[in-house]
Amino acid sequence: MTRKPVVGVMGGADVGAEVCALARELGKRIAERGWVLLNGGRDSGVMRASAAGAHEAGGTVIGILPDADTSRATPDLDYAIVTGMGDARNLINVLTSDVVIACPGGAGTLSEVALALNNGKHVILLGWDAGAAFEDFRRGGLLTTAKDPEDALAQAKETLPRAGHHSQPG
Amino acid sequence: MTRKPVVGVMGGADVGAEVCALARELGKRIAERGWVLLNGGRDSGVMRASAAGAHEAGGTVIGILPDADTSRATPDLDYAIVTGMGDARNLINVLTSDVVIACPGGAGTLSEVALALNNGKHVILLGWDAGAAFEDFRRGGLLTTAKDPEDALAQAKETLPRAGHHSQPG
Amino acid sequence: MTRKPVVGVMGGADVGAEVCALARELGKRIAERGWVLLNGGRDSGVMRASAAGAHEAGGTVIGILPDADTSRATPDLDYAIVTGMGDARNLINVLTSDVVIACPGGAGTLSEVALALNNGKHVILLGWDAGAAFEDFRRGGLLTTAKDPEDALAQAKETLPRAGHHSQPG
Amino acid sequence: MTRKPVVGVMGGADVGAEVCALARELGKRIAERGWVLLNGGRDSGVMRASAAGAHEAGGTVIGILPDADTSRATPDLDYAIVTGMGDARNLINVLTSDVVIACPGGAGTLSEVALALNNGKHVILLGWDAGAAFEDFRRGGLLTTAKDPEDALAQAKETLPRAGHHSQPG
Repeated sequence: MTRKPVVGVMGGADVGAEVCALARELGKRIAERGWVLLNGGRDSGVMRASAAGAHEAGGTVIGILPDADTSRATPDLDYAIVTGMGDARNLINVLTSDVVIACPGGAGTLSEVALALNNGKHVILLGWDAGAAFEDFRRGGLLTTAKDPEDALAQAKETLPRAGHHSQPG
Repeated sequence: MTRKPVVGVMGGADVGAEVCALARELGKRIAERGWVLLNGGRDSGVMRASAAGAHEAGGTVIGILPDADTSRATPDLDYAIVTGMGDARNLINVLTSDVVIACPGGAGTLSEVALALNNGKHVILLGWDAGAAFEDFRRGGLLTTAKDPEDALAQAKETLPRAGHHSQPG
Repeated sequence: MTRKPVVGVMGGADVGAEVCALARELGKRIAERGWVLLNGGRDSGVMRASAAGAHEAGGTVIGILPDADTSRATPDLDYAIVTGMGDARNLINVLTSDVVIACPGGAGTLSEVALALNNGKHVILLGWDAGAAFEDFRRGGLLTTAKDPEDALAQAKETLPRAGHHSQPG
Repeated sequence: MTRKPVVGVMGGADVGAEVCALARELGKRIAERGWVLLNGGRDSGVMRASAAGAHEAGGTVIGILPDADTSRATPDLDYAIVTGMGDARNLINVLTSDVVIACPGGAGTLSEVALALNNGKHVILLGWDAGAAFEDFRRGGLLTTAKDPEDALAQAKETLPRAGHHSQPG
């Protein structure tokens, strides 16, 4: 049994056109590599853009929704996981991802970066810097920075053989 | 955008060979219809058997795991959603399903039947009866009984056009 | 260190005057014994009535709210735990209780009975019967029936010395 | 009905003696003001120290446990809320608090700061700085810094009349 690697893409719901373009490009490249894209599933910002990019390239998209139904889901989801748990679903986003790529966002994105690191997941920052608060994780190598989507995927690939589709005790 | 219908299959982790055979047959027939099978993802009982049956027929399987990693996931999952929330994931199982088919099981299965009904989901009992406690829902039509997997799927199909791949306010 | 025993009172949000009177009496007697009352915290049905009864007798009430704020909390809570997780908070209700007393209710109450039993908690049904689906737990003694509030508390007391204020591995 | 204000104290499980002393002093002063202390409930670091400080001064302590039982609870809890949800309980910590004071900690603490801000809660940093990633919230006034426990409580008091024991739509 080999499940495909799952790359979590986090980022803001309320971001500008430049960040959306970045997220779309990232989603496209994830799909081109044959990896599954996971995000927060809503129809705005990085969630919408990364899902659209992955679909454009024929990829598979899983959205983990905070709501109790799919009314706010972005159309480009293949699988809409309905949690009804608000921001508690942020933990599911990162636990389900083999590696996390974080685009710019607000406090929700920061919570996902922190929850991922707290649960031993490699986090790759794309297009921003998390600053001093996360410095220990940078030194330890669990938090890295990518200069563009291709660099992010190259870094993700380094992590995936270790964390990818094999069972992993927590 | 058309997401495939998601059929949740609930049932015990510790059940006999007859129930496992039933779950496997059910999984197979769900896949043959082109529907997605969702279950609790662990490598035992109805979860393992229904996933195996769906895979045997080339279908897609989503497992919603109670654990914080995939170490107890059944091999026949295409997508392993890692919640780390124990039985709280039972709510996600039913909210994510367009319709729920419940095979025999224990208290965990009963909690999923109850959570599904409490959130307005159609529950089809396959091979058992939930008894007096759930009688109001039977009278209201939200809870029905199927005599075999094919009957369960016929009943599920009646629900899916209403609840399937369209957005639905909760 | 001795934490006071916590008695969870479950039951419907939409029940008649007779059930509310029963819940109020139950809350009062829990408080008179010096035990803490825990319920789902909302301002209706068994939640409202049991909290009012406990407060009437000078007791302490914890409400575990499904909402993301306290706007629907019943006034008679000393502590309002805000989960924002909808029915997923039903699991917290039963895990936090040393023993669970279930008044009549709907599918939400049934989910709490099932989740409690699935997690090894003693459940006492007051004023109703859960029927055949839960028969195994009745035979095993984890599920019992009480004929009135005083009987329920006598049964709860039997459980509390074992489960009460001591640490208990899960 | 007037519930007492709830002050959430976050901070690391694995911190040095100086941070523990700070947390203990903070807990003591929260209790002296008649406020309820809420924390993550485990028997280490800031959780243990702040609970001990509050109890020393006769205060009330609520712990929101990540585990499915109370085996790792710190002894100085009056109420142990058992979630069984791991880090998903971090959301409950902040939603239940009227105001959040964050002592130094690791990624878990950072996740609580981020979740609090994302849900509109005032966060007061005591003894550290969250850095550039949270700068927007500092400018907006939702994130502030305190130079010592007394300063933190003075700032908390400014928030409590607005957010404290009244019902508040989310």
